[in-house]
Amino acid sequence: MNARRISRVEVVPVAFADPPLLNAVGVHEPFALRAVVRVRTDDGLEGLGETYADEVHLRRLAAVAAALPGSDPFATTALRRVVADVLARGGGAGGDGVAGMITGASTVDRVLAPFEVACLDLQGRALGLPVVDLLGGRVRDAVPYSAYLFYKWAGHPGADADGWGEALTPDQLVAQARRMVEGWGFTAIKLKGGVLPPDEEVEAVRALAAAFPGTPLRLDPNAAWTVETGIRVAKALDGLVEYLEDPVPGIDGMAAVAAAAPMPLATNMAVVAFDQLPPAVAAGAVQVVLGDHHFWGGLRRSQLLAGTCDTFGLGLSMHSNSHLGISLAAMTHLGAATPNLTHACDTHWPWKTEDVVRPGALRFVDGAVAVPAGPGLGVELDEDALGALHERYLACGLRSRDDTGYMRRFDPAFERKLATW
Amino acid sequence: MNARRISRVEVVPVAFADPPLLNAVGVHEPFALRAVVRVRTDDGLEGLGETYADEVHLRRLAAVAAALPGSDPFATTALRRVVADVLARGGGAGGDGVAGMITGASTVDRVLAPFEVACLDLQGRALGLPVVDLLGGRVRDAVPYSAYLFYKWAGHPGADADGWGEALTPDQLVAQARRMVEGWGFTAIKLKGGVLPPDEEVEAVRALAAAFPGTPLRLDPNAAWTVETGIRVAKALDGLVEYLEDPVPGIDGMAAVAAAAPMPLATNMAVVAFDQLPPAVAAGAVQVVLGDHHFWGGLRRSQLLAGTCDTFGLGLSMHSNSHLGISLAAMTHLGAATPNLTHACDTHWPWKTEDVVRPGALRFVDGAVAVPAGPGLGVELDEDALGALHERYLACGLRSRDDTGYMRRFDPAFERKLATW
Repeated sequence: MNARRISRVEVVPVAFADPPLLNAVGVHEPFALRAVVRVRTDDGLEGLGETYADEVHLRRLAAVAAALPGSDPFATTALRRVVADVLARGGGAGGDGVAGMITGASTVDRVLAPFEVACLDLQGRALGLPVVDLLGGRVRDAVPYSAYLFYKWAGHPGADADGWGEALTPDQLVAQARRMVEGWGFTAIKLKGGVLPPDEEVEAVRALAAAFPGTPLRLDPNAAWTVETGIRVAKALDGLVEYLEDPVPGIDGMAAVAAAAPMPLATNMAVVAFDQLPPAVAAGAVQVVLGDHHFWGGLRRSQLLAGTCDTFGLGLSMHSNSHLGISLAAMTHLGAATPNLTHACDTHWPWKTEDVVRPGALRFVDGAVAVPAGPGLGVELDEDALGALHERYLACGLRSRDDTGYMRRFDPAFERKLATW
Repeated sequence: MNARRISRVEVVPVAFADPPLLNAVGVHEPFALRAVVRVRTDDGLEGLGETYADEVHLRRLAAVAAALPGSDPFATTALRRVVADVLARGGGAGGDGVAGMITGASTVDRVLAPFEVACLDLQGRALGLPVVDLLGGRVRDAVPYSAYLFYKWAGHPGADADGWGEALTPDQLVAQARRMVEGWGFTAIKLKGGVLPPDEEVEAVRALAAAFPGTPLRLDPNAAWTVETGIRVAKALDGLVEYLEDPVPGIDGMAAVAAAAPMPLATNMAVVAFDQLPPAVAAGAVQVVLGDHHFWGGLRRSQLLAGTCDTFGLGLSMHSNSHLGISLAAMTHLGAATPNLTHACDTHWPWKTEDVVRPGALRFVDGAVAVPAGPGLGVELDEDALGALHERYLACGLRSRDDTGYMRRFDPAFERKLATW
């Protein structure tokens, strides 16, 4: 009845231009790396996935890709066992696989995710159904995203200023937010913090609150603060933010801040894998989980996370790394299928000037993206663009994200901030 | 792309012959009641669901059935909102809706379940896919069930002895088990207890252990015992059972027994709805949850339960009420899609002599049922049988399950056992 089998799997790393966005561990390099996963069946169908492209992760993806031919593209739950077995046999070697700030997530789920998404895309194309219909159907037609503000330099050192210009002061952040809200219609605003001393970031949030009265705000210092600072800043932000994201590292630290904070605490650092949910729930460490299908094992396991949050009284939103259109489509199908999406999702989308998918399928209206109309994820590869961004990957020399190393080229004394302030 | 809409929904109550099986609240009546749910679309497709047929529940099903035409049969998550709204507007009036021992489950999930299953059956038929492929695909080809032993009378009072005969002694139970194992190939054995004083039931388990060495055994007294008895009996059963099911009522009671019991405690009474999971987890009340898609909101929400059990370190098996072939098919698709099905599922199947589905699709081999090969659930209605069992429903006079009332016709002094022994 379903005799389709996976015949070929390709993993194509790409590099796309990225502005010098600042965070607690450094600054974005000139190019962000992603990998496009293409899963094909013997009857000529193709499904797409997108994931990180750090070197160790790419080796793992390649090991799994080699093991997949012959598998049933509808058996995505069984796929997790395939991935686990490949990794257990040493497929792709050691190391964490994703540089930057995601360090605790389950490796199996992180490797599984793009293959699961590609299989769902392929299923939808085979059946003439959007992916959202494979996830229980839509509970909303469009998924709300938030404006994602960053402190940033005017341009990469040695290059011209980018179109966004410098953002190092409250006024510059307000201008950045205004452009985001006017251009994309966002109805929630998130500021990536952990860049300046906490009191300066509180001032920036105050300026945003004054400029956008009634708009939900969030601050995310990526665990750059101590528990003492976290509690003090949380109290200073009372009434200003809908949630405070990852003020401090770890479940115990989050629990200590949560006990004193007047607002919910959100996380995409303290709880990034299923085995961290029980201790986090027991400790009351977090009140909102920022899911991310790229490290929670794909769309169906992200639905499991969503249902778990609903059962245990946790709010739910969505985390983002720099990403392309395949990921935005997947995030949108998932968000449209998720009843308890309690806060607008994060996305780096406005910062991106290049893509591997043809334009048109993904549009922001009033800060939300409608579920694409086509079958599967509803986005189509632009083979020329994919080829060009793959060439860029080969030429650019970047092989793993290293915000800290890039920062130190310009500020040799720079130290990553973790429970620092 | 998916323009199908639900055009008509029918709910058909049926009554099928049931032997005089004993439990803590009485004895099964001569007929078990079930409702067959038929969901049709405007393009002529049909999907099947099966559920309880107690009177209040039927009224609720009818209210939801009337509200469904026009809905998208692929939007099963949104269906839960429709059900909740219908019930909130008073659809089907008050009362618990299911007599017998299921009293705490979420009404919305219990009413939702047969419609969700019917929509999945319909989707599978529309797409040419088995339901298991809509749930992430199979992780096993056949689902293991357990032999479900009952203390029983030889026959219903006033009627001839049924083919199984009396089972009131350890020897008679061993004979019943032997017939189950020889006839269906079961590799696990469950005894419904709560019928005789606990020490006599321990003796029955000892006899079963001696007769079936190495076969996993379970005893389920349906919360007939006190905590003191539960702890004492649990210790007496050390090494004899793979788990002890619902020795006592309630999360606190189960937690008290669990703290002293040498084996895992299982439940289909203390935890029967999502909102009971957080307190049960916090208390360490249960170690195995017996899911049941009929009261956990259908197949996808049962997958959520399964994933939650996996995350929180709980085992998973499946509860059964007297049921027909539509339910066995649904249970089998669900079980085939569930990686962490840690124990064989319960089923009343061998006790049943009549059905509404055509024979052949569901076969027990070595105690397991292979996923039916056809699209959807893979079972077909036998319209004549459905008509006959519906006529039986109309004629039999039973409108709600009442094991206690039936028992009292023969033993007026009978009292339901709840924390009694």
